[in-house]
Amino acid sequence: MRSRIQRAMLELGYVRNHAARALRSQRSHMVGVLIPTLDYALYARLVSAAGSQLSVAGISTLIATFDYDLEAELREARLLLERGAEALILVGDYHRPELYGLLHQFNVPFVNTYTYDPKSIYPTAGFDNSASAAIIAQHLVHLGHSNICVISGITEDNDRTTRRLEGIREELARHGLPLPASRVIESPYSISDGKKACALLLSRDAPQPTAIVCGNDVLALGALIECSARGLEVPGDISVVGFDNLEFAMHSNPPLTTIDVPARDMGIAAAEFILGRLGGNEVAMHNSVEVRLILRDSSAPPRRSSPRRDSSRQ
Amino acid sequence: MRSRIQRAMLELGYVRNHAARALRSQRSHMVGVLIPTLDYALYARLVSAAGSQLSVAGISTLIATFDYDLEAELREARLLLERGAEALILVGDYHRPELYGLLHQFNVPFVNTYTYDPKSIYPTAGFDNSASAAIIAQHLVHLGHSNICVISGITEDNDRTTRRLEGIREELARHGLPLPASRVIESPYSISDGKKACALLLSRDAPQPTAIVCGNDVLALGALIECSARGLEVPGDISVVGFDNLEFAMHSNPPLTTIDVPARDMGIAAAEFILGRLGGNEVAMHNSVEVRLILRDSSAPPRRSSPRRDSSRQ
Repeated sequence: MRSRIQRAMLELGYVRNHAARALRSQRSHMVGVLIPTLDYALYARLVSAAGSQLSVAGISTLIATFDYDLEAELREARLLLERGAEALILVGDYHRPELYGLLHQFNVPFVNTYTYDPKSIYPTAGFDNSASAAIIAQHLVHLGHSNICVISGITEDNDRTTRRLEGIREELARHGLPLPASRVIESPYSISDGKKACALLLSRDAPQPTAIVCGNDVLALGALIECSARGLEVPGDISVVGFDNLEFAMHSNPPLTTIDVPARDMGIAAAEFILGRLGGNEVAMHNSVEVRLILRDSSAPPRRSSPRRDSSRQ
Repeated sequence: MRSRIQRAMLELGYVRNHAARALRSQRSHMVGVLIPTLDYALYARLVSAAGSQLSVAGISTLIATFDYDLEAELREARLLLERGAEALILVGDYHRPELYGLLHQFNVPFVNTYTYDPKSIYPTAGFDNSASAAIIAQHLVHLGHSNICVISGITEDNDRTTRRLEGIREELARHGLPLPASRVIESPYSISDGKKACALLLSRDAPQPTAIVCGNDVLALGALIECSARGLEVPGDISVVGFDNLEFAMHSNPPLTTIDVPARDMGIAAAEFILGRLGGNEVAMHNSVEVRLILRDSSAPPRRSSPRRDSSRQ
């Protein structure tokens, strides 16, 4: 009886911390997932796949979003840990140092998805965003393009978009091609924003680009639509390429050259890493998934001359 | 001191229940959201909007998914309540009776979104799926169509898809038009599944339909692509209409006639209802959002005769 009282006494104190401890100490069978937004199709797919995999092992998933705000991510992580999360699945490797501190303090397994970096001291499950974006930039260079523009996702606080843009920039530089600020636009994630960004790039007082690299397929779809609205033929007048290989990419007009991102595989890799850690097993710190260049009809060699400049622009 | 021990004693017992009670009793400032899947764009939008609204009031959101499995929904609801959820936002009104029992037992405010039913004893925030689907069916009947097929979402355990199909059936019946089983296909939510369903409907040994009503825009996009692959002109040879008004619907070829579903408004309405309840305020039990028929180029009157049958089909 005494020990029960002692135990009860120990349990006095800050109730929420207690509750959190209690929930964790006896295996909550719950893993938390922190994603920037639900509006990005591949995050949703990654989380679904991870959730299914964890569910087979009897573990539930709770999801929180932080709208690309790393302070909010930290708050939500704290909330998930207070709610008893035994492990966290994160997106990318840009996080507040306090988040890493918290994970260390609570001794909670976690993994950074959507990134692969064997040199990182933190576990990763994903792919090299820089190298993957370089692949599609190289594809355009090999086709003969030298006047290339970029519609990037917003790079602030986002390692995926930041590294994709870096990868494109480095690949072009490797071929002696500059990428001045005037040829890059950062854009929110929507078809209409992709249209707007494309319109802005095409209206600038500079040589017309012969190719546009888009940070994702949604922006690329917007660019395709804008080009078509301006009477520009894709790929005859201008090549447009995407990133993600969403389902619509094979059905767009023309079908989109893009990079296939195996979001489901990432979710499974992340879940298996977490399950291994929770089971006390040896698991590889870093797990990569394979991205592939998908060649479709939206990219082709540039025309030698540019007759469209005389015929289809005012 | 004695009271502290008494309190501590009271806290002994099943730790998880205790922890859950502790988390709830002192305002956890956390609301749970249960959605069938993250892969349905409008659920993601609804949750984002609700989350933003709750966040302004200092309340965090945790999301769980149940893959259209109502037993899993019950389990996830229990988990969220154990984790201290002060309220739950649900989708639809098909739930296990035990879920309603649990909400009653825990005295937890909740709201059924994506449905509006002023006669329900449970709070709703959404729209009448049956009446909304009837609107688009009526549009086709008014154009002169009498040979109408339906590609529905999967109806099992899903009140939204079930009622949309009912609404279409009732509207056609009101005009003396039957909807035999051979003219209805239920399909999973993807472009390729929409294509397949459309192919199946068009290959059946029956009079060719002059219009296809799709349960959502993703299925309708698949149907548009399949029609185009078969050399059928939309809307000349066949009308195709959707539901949801996703962003791509205005950019498809041809742009899609559809029903606009204000998912963001539903999310906000749900959040405001929950905030009102948590604040102890009088709030309306039922809140409706406005759906609208969006007329675009994928629907038109049927041709008098059907020359395509001779020219473009084998």
